[in-house]
Amino acid sequence: MDYLVRKISQLRIFEDANGKMNRSVSEAGGSVLIVSQFTLAASVRKGNRPSFEKAEPPERASELCKEVVRRLRETGLSVSTGIFGAMMAVSLVNDGPVTVIIDSREGPLPGWAGER
Amino acid sequence: MDYLVRKISQLRIFEDANGKMNRSVSEAGGSVLIVSQFTLAASVRKGNRPSFEKAEPPERASELCKEVVRRLRETGLSVSTGIFGAMMAVSLVNDGPVTVIIDSREGPLPGWAGER
Repeated sequence: MDYLVRKISQLRIFEDANGKMNRSVSEAGGSVLIVSQFTLAASVRKGNRPSFEKAEPPERASELCKEVVRRLRETGLSVSTGIFGAMMAVSLVNDGPVTVIIDSREGPLPGWAGER
Repeated sequence: MDYLVRKISQLRIFEDANGKMNRSVSEAGGSVLIVSQFTLAASVRKGNRPSFEKAEPPERASELCKEVVRRLRETGLSVSTGIFGAMMAVSLVNDGPVTVIIDSREGPLPGWAGER
């Protein structure tokens, strides 16, 4: 979770004045919308119906989600949330588009001091 | 690529009348929007600037993208596309939201006859 929070708050994925990905969300004056998404854990390898066996049970997932939000707010970021477990229509304009996958199972590179 | 095209066209990720994920995109009367997204290939493990070394070179990526679109259209689906390599503002309503990752590197399960 430290990894996720650090990456979300520190990744330089917003453009600077020169159009380069160089600014973090706070440097870009942005805020964060956290929406839990158990369908991301779907396995689609077997047949055509997604399997959600790898998703955390709802209670545990909800706790993890709240904790990510709490820790992100501790960094000073403005954080909005969805409603856990609800069907929602999330309207957005995907600018770029830029979509980056941060996988907490990967974690920092071994021996990469910059991550500590 | 066969794997991606088959999964996109056949995955039952749309709700039926009972609210179950049971219908494919064509059964749901839907169409497909294909937008190439090299930022998905970003590695964020090292530091705070994403590395795009794993993304295909633009020319190759563009060919692959066109081929996916061509093959999806062959299945009878209506397919729209983004502009390859362009900065775009993709407006959408993420319904659910449902986001499923289909990774062509995984491919079918060994010995899974249903995938052939």
